[in-house]
Amino acid sequence: MPDTLDPEIASRLKRDDHGLVAAIVQQHDTGEVLMLGWMDDEALRRTLTTGRVTFWSRSRGEYWRKGDTSGHQQYVKSVAIDCDGDALLVRVDQVGAACHTGERTCFLAGGDLPAVVGSRPEVAP
Amino acid sequence: MPDTLDPEIASRLKRDDHGLVAAIVQQHDTGEVLMLGWMDDEALRRTLTTGRVTFWSRSRGEYWRKGDTSGHQQYVKSVAIDCDGDALLVRVDQVGAACHTGERTCFLAGGDLPAVVGSRPEVAP
Repeated sequence: MPDTLDPEIASRLKRDDHGLVAAIVQQHDTGEVLMLGWMDDEALRRTLTTGRVTFWSRSRGEYWRKGDTSGHQQYVKSVAIDCDGDALLVRVDQVGAACHTGERTCFLAGGDLPAVVGSRPEVAP
Repeated sequence: MPDTLDPEIASRLKRDDHGLVAAIVQQHDTGEVLMLGWMDDEALRRTLTTGRVTFWSRSRGEYWRKGDTSGHQQYVKSVAIDCDGDALLVRVDQVGAACHTGERTCFLAGGDLPAVVGSRPEVAP
């Protein structure tokens, strides 16, 4: 296993001031958006080469592999990069809850904000 | 329409060094993850109160409303916040392409990275 991220991939990343890109985690079959995490080059390398999702924890300043403490592993199905290289879409098979609160997703844990719903204009038939 | 973000909502946001939170945009019915954008308090206020998604452009340093130049509007269906307040999940009805490249999603535009696929261990029956 290579111990640095493929330079061709590394050259496509547009990292923030802390060297990180956002990683959206989505359940591969249901389409549920489970959580948002952060990856540096090494976290992405581990994610691409091991079949398990690894993040960089901004609060703890360390790598963490989802499931190592909770048992709620994320198994990688695919990893896509966006058009400008500052976001990743990681499709996974999530065991149990993705959120540390025990909810299936971090967005169910936080909940909906009150929002005005918009609709595309009606088009005359 | 109020001209500042509801303080109760504002108090839940965990902004980055630039005052921004990540906003994941998902097609509400198909579950496609369309793009990732960034919002400050004012972009979120506009998104919650107008039925149309507004972002803060980090590269241009201005607000932009998806569709105003492209015609590819994003109509808001719901907005959820995550457990720790640094990410939003905006479910929308996306007209046409979400990506400026003309692709439906920014992740189709960027494409898949080579990844080792993981699987949960087989459990004996």
